[in-house]
Amino acid sequence: MQLAMIQDKMVPYAELDPVYLDRGTFFGDGVYEVIRSYEGRVFAIEEHMARFKRSLREVDIGGVDIADVRGRVERAFAEAGIENAKIYFHVTRGSADRNHKAPADLTPNFFLTVTELDDPAANKTSGILVSTFPDWRWKRCDIKSLNLLANVLARRDAEGKGCCEAVLVNEAGEITEGATSAIFVVRAGEKELVTRPLGPDILPSITRAVVLRIARSAGLRPVKEVITPAEAAAADELFIAGTTQDIVPVVAFDGTTIGNGQPGEHTKKLSGAFRQYVLNSH
Amino acid sequence: MQLAMIQDKMVPYAELDPVYLDRGTFFGDGVYEVIRSYEGRVFAIEEHMARFKRSLREVDIGGVDIADVRGRVERAFAEAGIENAKIYFHVTRGSADRNHKAPADLTPNFFLTVTELDDPAANKTSGILVSTFPDWRWKRCDIKSLNLLANVLARRDAEGKGCCEAVLVNEAGEITEGATSAIFVVRAGEKELVTRPLGPDILPSITRAVVLRIARSAGLRPVKEVITPAEAAAADELFIAGTTQDIVPVVAFDGTTIGNGQPGEHTKKLSGAFRQYVLNSH
Repeated sequence: MQLAMIQDKMVPYAELDPVYLDRGTFFGDGVYEVIRSYEGRVFAIEEHMARFKRSLREVDIGGVDIADVRGRVERAFAEAGIENAKIYFHVTRGSADRNHKAPADLTPNFFLTVTELDDPAANKTSGILVSTFPDWRWKRCDIKSLNLLANVLARRDAEGKGCCEAVLVNEAGEITEGATSAIFVVRAGEKELVTRPLGPDILPSITRAVVLRIARSAGLRPVKEVITPAEAAAADELFIAGTTQDIVPVVAFDGTTIGNGQPGEHTKKLSGAFRQYVLNSH
Repeated sequence: MQLAMIQDKMVPYAELDPVYLDRGTFFGDGVYEVIRSYEGRVFAIEEHMARFKRSLREVDIGGVDIADVRGRVERAFAEAGIENAKIYFHVTRGSADRNHKAPADLTPNFFLTVTELDDPAANKTSGILVSTFPDWRWKRCDIKSLNLLANVLARRDAEGKGCCEAVLVNEAGEITEGATSAIFVVRAGEKELVTRPLGPDILPSITRAVVLRIARSAGLRPVKEVITPAEAAAADELFIAGTTQDIVPVVAFDGTTIGNGQPGEHTKKLSGAFRQYVLNSH
């Protein structure tokens, strides 16, 4: 008789809850989004839903109504009643016997959480330390998929070094992005705000796009160029950007102090402009 | 109040079954093995347990007693009573709030299934068709991890072309391995059996190792060399090898017929030698 074992307990295979046969677990065969709210309002939901739709298309998961997903996000957020919330959701190809080939008629699985956001003020006021790690990820980092083990291992390495984020460096010796963020360099003399151009090696980060859009309000010209670890370590200012914490100053890169070891002036201006952008979008 | 949504049903977050917070699903943060039995006997369990132990170490998942895992495998196999069984098991870092950083005290999750093996005789007697796909996988394919979306997408492409397996080709234009198998070329004139050397870009396949060990019984010298798609398409014989179906002849590569379109003589000899090896190991 076919059977399963959950921890050390045997279960007839036929009685397994389908959640144990989720292709999300067997293969990471699914895509996700993380959205946050600022003071009771969900930020950039259109952009997140558009990216989610693209991710679904790129991995060829069909049968998902994006308007319906958006409705669930809005309903859950309203029900939770959390001012500064982290909304996580994923869709996987569905539950089935473990086989790379998925049955044709599979129903996708949807899962969502609305939780209290962890956005420590100290990270923004004092800045964080980052360290580099080889970019071991796959070649389609433009897809926001559940295959995140390389990111997890990079972050474990960073945490072991007392750092909050891992900066991923590819085989060409270029920074791609952070394990959970985009990376920006400020060239103060040139009045430039630099980040890597989009491509299959980085996520089309929504926060990155907003930061580029508001660059001029901090007197900076947005520039899309490859950044090397040497440039990052010698930068006038350095920061990371991502959904849950938006802009976070970096004050040390692989042990090298950035600027005077305090969040830079342009970075602080950008943080203010970002906050203003969020308020205006309400 | 923090909450979750499973499909379209809301659940208080605090009441979620921990299986929904498995890091295996959120990140693919886990490793696995597939073992098979031949006529009531589990094959190569030592090798599979050794590889599993290495995978756990490489992703830094601690607190797993390998002897205990082996005991579970043996107990479940005995209980299932399936002659030709596929035994799948994985260990993930555990269940926790979704955060790349895992709590230090996390208990790993274990999951196993014993199911009827799918080993269609026709694949062995008639051979299969394969097609190529870009190798999009991460840079640590030597770790048998749950991050398998690249493999799934490659297989979907192959299935769309009427093929049973995808042969992955890296950016250097080299074949690495199949989406779920190792690849072998027979150079009949040179009496050579060729497969790619081990490295971070392929799985240390146990079936591959056995095939190399028995090569001489089919009159072939084992050779570890890079194979290109051009060489594969022009090969005297071509086959794939993996746990569930051991040796499967390939009779067409990207639409090009291999040999006379039938399983090759050396491949058939190797299949026989493999079966003998399995019997001897009992």
